[in-house]
Amino acid sequence: MDAVNAAIERQPASVDLLVDLGAADMAGVNALISARMQSPVAVIPALADHLINAGGKRLRPLLTVAAARLAGSDSDGCLKLAAAVEFIHTATLLHDDVIDSSQLRRGKVAAHLIWGAPSSVLVGDYLFARAFELMVEAGSLRALDILAKAAGVISEGEVLQLTRAHDLNLSKDIYLEIIRAKTAELFAAAAEAGAVSAGAPEEQVRAMRTYGLNLGLAFQLSDDALDYGGLTEDLGKNAGDDFREGKATLPLLLAIAATGPEEAAFWERTVGRREQTDEDFQRAQTLVRETGAGEATLDMAADFAREAKLALGCMAAGEWRDALEELADFAVSRST
Amino acid sequence: MDAVNAAIERQPASVDLLVDLGAADMAGVNALISARMQSPVAVIPALADHLINAGGKRLRPLLTVAAARLAGSDSDGCLKLAAAVEFIHTATLLHDDVIDSSQLRRGKVAAHLIWGAPSSVLVGDYLFARAFELMVEAGSLRALDILAKAAGVISEGEVLQLTRAHDLNLSKDIYLEIIRAKTAELFAAAAEAGAVSAGAPEEQVRAMRTYGLNLGLAFQLSDDALDYGGLTEDLGKNAGDDFREGKATLPLLLAIAATGPEEAAFWERTVGRREQTDEDFQRAQTLVRETGAGEATLDMAADFAREAKLALGCMAAGEWRDALEELADFAVSRST
Repeated sequence: MDAVNAAIERQPASVDLLVDLGAADMAGVNALISARMQSPVAVIPALADHLINAGGKRLRPLLTVAAARLAGSDSDGCLKLAAAVEFIHTATLLHDDVIDSSQLRRGKVAAHLIWGAPSSVLVGDYLFARAFELMVEAGSLRALDILAKAAGVISEGEVLQLTRAHDLNLSKDIYLEIIRAKTAELFAAAAEAGAVSAGAPEEQVRAMRTYGLNLGLAFQLSDDALDYGGLTEDLGKNAGDDFREGKATLPLLLAIAATGPEEAAFWERTVGRREQTDEDFQRAQTLVRETGAGEATLDMAADFAREAKLALGCMAAGEWRDALEELADFAVSRST
Repeated sequence: MDAVNAAIERQPASVDLLVDLGAADMAGVNALISARMQSPVAVIPALADHLINAGGKRLRPLLTVAAARLAGSDSDGCLKLAAAVEFIHTATLLHDDVIDSSQLRRGKVAAHLIWGAPSSVLVGDYLFARAFELMVEAGSLRALDILAKAAGVISEGEVLQLTRAHDLNLSKDIYLEIIRAKTAELFAAAAEAGAVSAGAPEEQVRAMRTYGLNLGLAFQLSDDALDYGGLTEDLGKNAGDDFREGKATLPLLLAIAATGPEEAAFWERTVGRREQTDEDFQRAQTLVRETGAGEATLDMAADFAREAKLALGCMAAGEWRDALEELADFAVSRST
């Protein structure tokens, strides 16, 4: 474990400072979200509310707000963009859950199991359209371009993942390309659009994009490690989901590469064909730990978190920057 | 049959004049469509191409181009908007076919049956995002707003239709509300955005929206009548699809209302529970014809076509206006 993680163990990083700083702005964002998901067609607000108010942390819109404030904005110009970012995220979650036939989302029954897959697809489309309306109102063609491009990159990454989902030989590079597109790109665009809405100089716009991209990668990699229990035996509540779905995430890919021919039949059966017994996850978890695959994944996450913090160097010192630095630490520390 | 239809019988209206006038512009639109559906993720262009190059008439982007030219534009500003309109339309078709489990689209096997429903959903999302990128490049926030709002209205209309799809007691008003949202709104927005891109005065922008909306209603109603064979026994190639899917379209709703209790069991079995024998469609078709439900639907389509043509009154006389007038006639005449 490196110095960053050692420091984290002494005093755990948390998202609390950022949440406190952004509380007033996020109240405005939440009001916009509630207002804009309404429709006379009752199933739309019912389905949207089920997911939107299921207690997600709203990190992505918070990032838009934080980037705008850190870049010196004192207007409300970033709030509509932040609400749009959350709508884009919600739309992709609704479609993802249909595509993966997921049972749970944010601890609740997935929307498509209650209202049906067709409604989930269409309400996703509705929220996506509403996101663009909000962006038009925000009035920045450049911020619109950033988020429209991000939406394209996200779908592209998801199609790529779909075609390679159970590929035991997926390379680390392709895996990073997938998570960059499907997760990190929206973090990057959320932060970049916030800086743009604040009229920040180019150097700061680029810095906020770099921060968001690396933060998103750190979050996704530590999520992936967490699914195999991180470095400890103290499992998160959803541990094992990726393995049971046969998802080729980095800890698994590294473990497969490290275990050699003697485990090939085990991986082929459990991941390739998804024929699993109750004990298989424990064995996979042991292999991920013993090969160092979990630690290697977390080390990579820590590297991205460090890059994220470095990018903040050109931004004004102060509590917003401190809070974003701590968020980068939090992205990694929650899984160690 | 009214005077409009009588005139049509003497000299059938066609879409040829408009297609000829718009040929050069549509070559530009088609080049944009081909270029912007590309992606290094091979399944995206393959799936998109399957639907986009299956020979649709591209009426919606043609409407954007025609509105801009009729409003006096001689720039290429409308081409990106027109391509965006076609992408929005394609995205909704991909999602519709997944939702309806359709077997065919434009005479070809539906994309989701070849590449799977997940890929169809995600490629729809991809094209939707690419549409917004094109609109950003077109540079008009107002045109963006028109098309973003239209996309929201379309999904709203589709959710409404989903919840009422097999409702034998659907009112004519709700039915018109559904087709206004899911079909006519994109025709309206396509024409309105074209006029906006040309910098047309407000009166003309409103006129083009009114034209598009009424044209879309006329097309949808005549499509619905065509599915029961229009006024003749000479059926279109897809006749009977709506009935077999138990879709509550206007000819069916009017026939149900007109036939009274003696046919209630027939409608409840064939449409309500979708338990059909091979002879049922013929009986439904006879009832639609004998009750005058088909003719009433076409009369309503002719009324909307007349409204569409009236709206063109404030536009400059000339070949573009003539072509749009003929398109309105064509919307109705193809089904009589």
